[in-house]
Amino acid sequence: MTLRRSLLTLALALSPLPLLAADAPAKYRSAQEIIDASPASDWHTPAPENLLYMDVDGGRVIIELAPDFAPEHVGNIRTLAREHFWDGLSIYRAQDNFVVQFGDAEADDAAKARSMGSARTHLPAEFQRPAQGLAFTALPDRDGWATQTGFVGDFAVGSDGQHSWLAHCYGALGAGRNNAEDSSLGAELYVVIGQSPRQLDRNITLVGRVLKGMELLSAIQRGPEPMGFYDDAAQRTPIKAITLASTLPVEQRVPLQVLRTDSKTFAATVEARRNRVDGFYKRAAGHIDLCNIPLPVRVGSAVK
Amino acid sequence: MTLRRSLLTLALALSPLPLLAADAPAKYRSAQEIIDASPASDWHTPAPENLLYMDVDGGRVIIELAPDFAPEHVGNIRTLAREHFWDGLSIYRAQDNFVVQFGDAEADDAAKARSMGSARTHLPAEFQRPAQGLAFTALPDRDGWATQTGFVGDFAVGSDGQHSWLAHCYGALGAGRNNAEDSSLGAELYVVIGQSPRQLDRNITLVGRVLKGMELLSAIQRGPEPMGFYDDAAQRTPIKAITLASTLPVEQRVPLQVLRTDSKTFAATVEARRNRVDGFYKRAAGHIDLCNIPLPVRVGSAVK
Repeated sequence: MTLRRSLLTLALALSPLPLLAADAPAKYRSAQEIIDASPASDWHTPAPENLLYMDVDGGRVIIELAPDFAPEHVGNIRTLAREHFWDGLSIYRAQDNFVVQFGDAEADDAAKARSMGSARTHLPAEFQRPAQGLAFTALPDRDGWATQTGFVGDFAVGSDGQHSWLAHCYGALGAGRNNAEDSSLGAELYVVIGQSPRQLDRNITLVGRVLKGMELLSAIQRGPEPMGFYDDAAQRTPIKAITLASTLPVEQRVPLQVLRTDSKTFAATVEARRNRVDGFYKRAAGHIDLCNIPLPVRVGSAVK
Repeated sequence: MTLRRSLLTLALALSPLPLLAADAPAKYRSAQEIIDASPASDWHTPAPENLLYMDVDGGRVIIELAPDFAPEHVGNIRTLAREHFWDGLSIYRAQDNFVVQFGDAEADDAAKARSMGSARTHLPAEFQRPAQGLAFTALPDRDGWATQTGFVGDFAVGSDGQHSWLAHCYGALGAGRNNAEDSSLGAELYVVIGQSPRQLDRNITLVGRVLKGMELLSAIQRGPEPMGFYDDAAQRTPIKAITLASTLPVEQRVPLQVLRTDSKTFAATVEARRNRVDGFYKRAAGHIDLCNIPLPVRVGSAVK
């Protein structure tokens, strides 16, 4: 019986077949091989004032905030984290192929809602920002949702040349809102767990992304259709704490490193994914979508 | 405190704001409103010889097979189901943002592997087929992975005009293989549970899609990185049975109906998603990707 368990293996063997993509390199290197050969200078450590540690029973989710795109929301989120707003609250919604949402399940009930402390109670919508002033690393392929896509720092971004915005890729963190576009505060947050709902781009303020621990959010039992809010509070996933890394002593911070999206190494991984031809892949796509590009993250020297 | 729980609500109210999309209809109807108003003739009942009921502890996953695209694999899968090949086997892999995989976890070990009974032990790869002879309902938007995308029956499809193929959208069912392209048999199967890995299109034989019960697969605890195969057999999800609906008495079949993708109703839901402007959405995308289009399914008269 054949090794059918090796489905989708990251085979290192070169393909004996003719390459189908005209521009495939003579010697194909996988994204992982390229990452393994990267110099230390291709990696950076996100600023601790932009990192949230979200602790749940299963482990830790590490989130990076995006002050370049949502400075007002990020400021509020930092305040809420410093004041332990989320500690003891929960993930109270899980809608399949869409989002998990967390914060105060009683936020709608003034009598039961947790105080937001010194956080602001009104913020402007931050759906997009001027493109100018951002170091944008463009992707080569056309995107249906935006004139141009690429990366700014650790974030997947769409742009029309005039404005740029965070994209609703898998793992994106957004600020829940009511119908009014300026009704989000950063207290109720959601993370994308399915096919990227890019139709939400520039309709909601995105505030960051998950760097590590997505499996702790994506495998949560879904709530009832259509929207996934649990009927029974016991089904919610408790949040032990959400902590801003910069408020912890240095030795308690996770030594997380992220591959720089403006590095040659990152560009080479993108190309390796665009034109993958190895023992397993027979036909190179010659294309990649923004949300199909994983961001390599490592703790110490181990890529996660 | 505002109703922040209403994030992404399917608001029925019309937007008081100016419409941003030039071609947005004067009176916006949501996809759900359009579905609710559909005539019975817009729905069809998939053939029972193409439906698999996969029963796990949490409930039933309903899968539709695609004999128009993978006739040899579908034939083998029907044989395997009739002979109860999967009953008592398991979902033995869950890789985050990629796939869950099921079948015989011991398939690699000739001494322990379950017999495939009268199923065939070699099949041709069925990565694509001639475009001719398919009733293809094209989508209006450009896709990066294929010259044209659309639907054939209940299936999301890419095409280059000469050939057509099933697309790796969320919920797609594929036949695991080894490095050889003709090494899949339909015994080890996977379902896409994250951002659509369209780079796999035409690299693996897709054999169908999940119609109902995705949340039973997508919320499974992930296995260890990188590939998600469980180290501990106790972490696997047992499969009680996979049953071909046509082998059951009619009264035991689920009365499932699917919205016809060649109906005006389906086209209208696609347009409502392409240009969504309601109380919540402020900016119409003017676009939709193939894998962002859900297929409406109902049991009896209830849309699920």
